[in-house]
Amino acid sequence: MQQLTVVKIGGNVIDDEIALSNFLIEFNLLKGQKILVHGGGKLANQLQDKLNIPLQMVEGRRITDSETLKLVTMVYAGFINKNIVAKLQALNCNAIGLSGADANCINANKREVVSIDYGFVGDIKKINAAFISSCLENNMTPVFSAITHDGNGQLLNTNADTIASELAIALCVNYNVQLVYCFEKNGVLQNVDDDSSVLKSISNSDYNNLKENSVINNGMVPKMDNAFHALNKGVAFVQIGKAENLLQLVDKNNYAGTRLYHSK
Amino acid sequence: MQQLTVVKIGGNVIDDEIALSNFLIEFNLLKGQKILVHGGGKLANQLQDKLNIPLQMVEGRRITDSETLKLVTMVYAGFINKNIVAKLQALNCNAIGLSGADANCINANKREVVSIDYGFVGDIKKINAAFISSCLENNMTPVFSAITHDGNGQLLNTNADTIASELAIALCVNYNVQLVYCFEKNGVLQNVDDDSSVLKSISNSDYNNLKENSVINNGMVPKMDNAFHALNKGVAFVQIGKAENLLQLVDKNNYAGTRLYHSK
Repeated sequence: MQQLTVVKIGGNVIDDEIALSNFLIEFNLLKGQKILVHGGGKLANQLQDKLNIPLQMVEGRRITDSETLKLVTMVYAGFINKNIVAKLQALNCNAIGLSGADANCINANKREVVSIDYGFVGDIKKINAAFISSCLENNMTPVFSAITHDGNGQLLNTNADTIASELAIALCVNYNVQLVYCFEKNGVLQNVDDDSSVLKSISNSDYNNLKENSVINNGMVPKMDNAFHALNKGVAFVQIGKAENLLQLVDKNNYAGTRLYHSK
Repeated sequence: MQQLTVVKIGGNVIDDEIALSNFLIEFNLLKGQKILVHGGGKLANQLQDKLNIPLQMVEGRRITDSETLKLVTMVYAGFINKNIVAKLQALNCNAIGLSGADANCINANKREVVSIDYGFVGDIKKINAAFISSCLENNMTPVFSAITHDGNGQLLNTNADTIASELAIALCVNYNVQLVYCFEKNGVLQNVDDDSSVLKSISNSDYNNLKENSVINNGMVPKMDNAFHALNKGVAFVQIGKAENLLQLVDKNNYAGTRLYHSK
């Protein structure tokens, strides 16, 4: 099977134009087929502030009301997405920017209100793997913003880590998929204050121990849960580390960052 | 050859949610393949005002500085484009939202400064007809925002009427193309104050007379020039009229609006 790398980048890369350009150069050098998933960045918060749209957070998570949805659709699917696509095109990488609505790529359900109403937030229901595969077969590189739709005309704000893992899962029927989460640290750390204390590899059983002993804290748990979910569903491996080390992260012989794997 | 209809809508439809929904229902009922091109709308101006980005106009045309480019990319390629795509998906029309950067669909040159510096404005250089045709062959409906790129990483603001005519021209090698310009009037008017004085048809020689006699005024000239350019380059016909009459505009036996044609 052909190699496919699904890479997710976050705000720290997106907000820094030089870091973003350098990252895209390395991304373009990845061997095999590739998909990029990007989160937001400071621009959405800055605009929210300038436009006096109140930032509503509950338990550390953003509530997406209709004005916030409009804003994140503009920033994520508009400015950030098209900017990345134009930069990749300049590198002769035939990028195509997609939201979940485009070609019905990612169908989601609006999250049901249990105790908290998150607003226009989507939980992924179905990925259009056939269309995404046809893009890859035609040497196009899909670039996904974290906006999905419900199939009834409603756009939905969706977690970019989850989009990356669900894309990886949907495509591992036809591809040998590696998933790479780029974030601000060198990898998963033994000691959160020491950026050199990278855990080289973590299996699913290691993960349970690390959670029990609180080595892995709250902020990392959703990302790690997404990663192990992808491994359980057939993704070959998940690598976590810094965007600026992308090519080292995927180096087969001497990788940087943390490798997550599924112990059988 | 298969039928292809390229439809351009402007701000008056985009700004009115009910008018837009009704228009999209009719658009979805068009026979044969179809492409939608959309302009901006009031949202860009409203945001420009709220964000205190000065609106610079020279001779009735907007100057696109870098902040304005960021804003129109957000609004056109982000909010408006994805909103239209999600609404079409809800009608089971497999829409795919594209800017000119995506899949290198529309390559443009930044307009050279002669007497006026229009800023980040693009004049179309090349259309990727192969990719757009492959979308159509796979029963996808491209929805274009009026944002292009220069191939060197720079996004550019581009006239939506021109995008529609250049798409129509590029695709008339493989399709029997009709181009429909929707605007706020019933058609091209004999008397600009009388919406019932629609000129049923205008040939290129009629057009020269109408311009000489100032029946067609300044505002309409660029649109009409685009239309006749498309006709000269092989587009079957161009229809101009109201978005709310879309199906009547393309009615073969008893059309509404104004039909432009090329007299041989």
